[in-house]
Amino acid sequence: MADLEHEVLARIERQRKLKPRWRDKHITMAHGAGGKATETLVTGLFEPAFANPALTELADSARLDIDGAALAFSTDGYVVKPLRFPGGSIGELAVNGTVNDLAVSGAKPIALTAAFVLEEGLDADILRAEVEAMALAARRAGVSIVSGDTKVVERTKADGMYIVTSGIGIRDRRIQLSAASIQPGDRVLCSGTIGDHGTAIMLARGELELDADIRSDTAPLWEQVLALIESVGPSLRVMRDPTRGGVATVLNEIAQAADLGVVLDESAVPVRPEVHGASEILGIDVMTMANEGKFLAFVAPDAAERALETLRGTPGGEDAALIGEVADEPAGMVLVRTGFGGTRIMDMLIGDPLPRIC
Amino acid sequence: MADLEHEVLARIERQRKLKPRWRDKHITMAHGAGGKATETLVTGLFEPAFANPALTELADSARLDIDGAALAFSTDGYVVKPLRFPGGSIGELAVNGTVNDLAVSGAKPIALTAAFVLEEGLDADILRAEVEAMALAARRAGVSIVSGDTKVVERTKADGMYIVTSGIGIRDRRIQLSAASIQPGDRVLCSGTIGDHGTAIMLARGELELDADIRSDTAPLWEQVLALIESVGPSLRVMRDPTRGGVATVLNEIAQAADLGVVLDESAVPVRPEVHGASEILGIDVMTMANEGKFLAFVAPDAAERALETLRGTPGGEDAALIGEVADEPAGMVLVRTGFGGTRIMDMLIGDPLPRIC
Repeated sequence: MADLEHEVLARIERQRKLKPRWRDKHITMAHGAGGKATETLVTGLFEPAFANPALTELADSARLDIDGAALAFSTDGYVVKPLRFPGGSIGELAVNGTVNDLAVSGAKPIALTAAFVLEEGLDADILRAEVEAMALAARRAGVSIVSGDTKVVERTKADGMYIVTSGIGIRDRRIQLSAASIQPGDRVLCSGTIGDHGTAIMLARGELELDADIRSDTAPLWEQVLALIESVGPSLRVMRDPTRGGVATVLNEIAQAADLGVVLDESAVPVRPEVHGASEILGIDVMTMANEGKFLAFVAPDAAERALETLRGTPGGEDAALIGEVADEPAGMVLVRTGFGGTRIMDMLIGDPLPRIC
Repeated sequence: MADLEHEVLARIERQRKLKPRWRDKHITMAHGAGGKATETLVTGLFEPAFANPALTELADSARLDIDGAALAFSTDGYVVKPLRFPGGSIGELAVNGTVNDLAVSGAKPIALTAAFVLEEGLDADILRAEVEAMALAARRAGVSIVSGDTKVVERTKADGMYIVTSGIGIRDRRIQLSAASIQPGDRVLCSGTIGDHGTAIMLARGELELDADIRSDTAPLWEQVLALIESVGPSLRVMRDPTRGGVATVLNEIAQAADLGVVLDESAVPVRPEVHGASEILGIDVMTMANEGKFLAFVAPDAAERALETLRGTPGGEDAALIGEVADEPAGMVLVRTGFGGTRIMDMLIGDPLPRIC
């Protein structure tokens, strides 16, 4: 890289390292988008207020060692619109989303709780369908829904229903995952095609005059993660599921946590042609789109080929690909190698082009 | 009791034992009130769909034995209106409520997660105040907030903010609690005055032209529960915190679970005079009002006096009282002995006279 580029990057990096403060006057949709505004809210407000080591890791789930057990503990709210979409629904998402937060933390998902906020007047059949979707998804993922709560708010004070699930998993003791553990030379694997969920939601909203058969990729990930643990175990550095904010946001967060660069080979990232087409029409980078059944894994270089083979051998992992590697620089940033031999810096999601995606 | 009364009671009991089905066409506010409509929703829809032993206990939290640990796992949503009220706020409630669900299950609260559903446009200072209230409440209760999630919905799709907390606790191995374990002769203890929270919320809404200094009783209960465990441990049958649905609902649920009667001495139930007055004006039975810092404990007869003394010696337990006992009949029901020597059957909360109380 040229000296000038170096200087620019160094300046961006210094700015990033300034202690973040949350200075916004009002909540905007972007605070829920999982990108930069969410990050500032978390690191500038929640983290200092709730300060404790588990929270400060800012992973998909908290690591807890209690009463002799090695646990992961996670929560996620679901406000997706519409409630049903090709390939899934809010109930299925609410189970798989929390199951996957545990899975990519290297924890076998065991038990979930479910809290509902329902809008007065909601059709009983709509609730019934989502409860059934949750029960089915829980059986598929091998977890039990062990406790719950229901609140009802007046008409217009919710949008049909919101669901919050929380989950407990048992951490696999064969691995130690941490974003800070990645090293230059590590390879980045993507477990399958990206952008499917985000595009399916946009199509379901009718915001796109496009007649494409694109379905959400919502699926539980523990079986794939377990296969990877059993195949390359200690060579696994960190895993994340690129939901809100997409691949771009996850890679940036890991690069920042490790203070290393991630160099992404754009042409290697698996994207369905119809998803690529839709994202072009929408003008939204597929890299920032939400996924609900995919994960990224950072692995030591010598285990990368085996890991890829393993993933490709799992159901749902057929399109897995090696999409990048870790480098010394640009420290704390993601550099994309484009198909035309050029490079550009890829930022995390800014704003909220796709509100209420999950 | 007269033969006629016996027959009536037997008929009510038979109706109650019919397999419940959830037949409602739409969600109403009553489904979130914690009374009969909530019970039918849970037993008629959630329980059959999510069927598993932990859920079927229908306790305040699920018992989980995983990876060698004896855990309790619980979740609760908070939609209280207004967000701030005399004695507390939604954030404080969200911490204490879940802490107390664990505590009354005999589990030391350890870790919470927090999921926010925020309304676009919410004033940042309002969120900041609640985050600070949660942090303070967590410190007071000795728990860590270890993971979280934030979603934002468009203006008018929420009412400022909703919070869902979930919690993990370690079950105290000295006790075995279960509603089904109560026996005729057991005594019922109430840890303090009831109706404070419900009345404080009504006053805060300005729905009552009354200028009384009534504050919510929101407080963490683990220290009181622990004192009771250490004092009368194995004599403890079951504990519950009478939140939504109040004392009336909790006593009915326990009576039904054990298929025994609970005979309540109305004049022994501690109620502040100003709360009594407000409930009279409102025409709402104080027994159905929500409490956020009180619990009911069923104890073996020979341990009752010691338990009461212990409770009265704890901070916040000064007004603890012996309020009733378990009897063979009316099976599955609660019989109230009024101050005038009469008796009446006390049902659980029906409908929702106090919506969004927590």
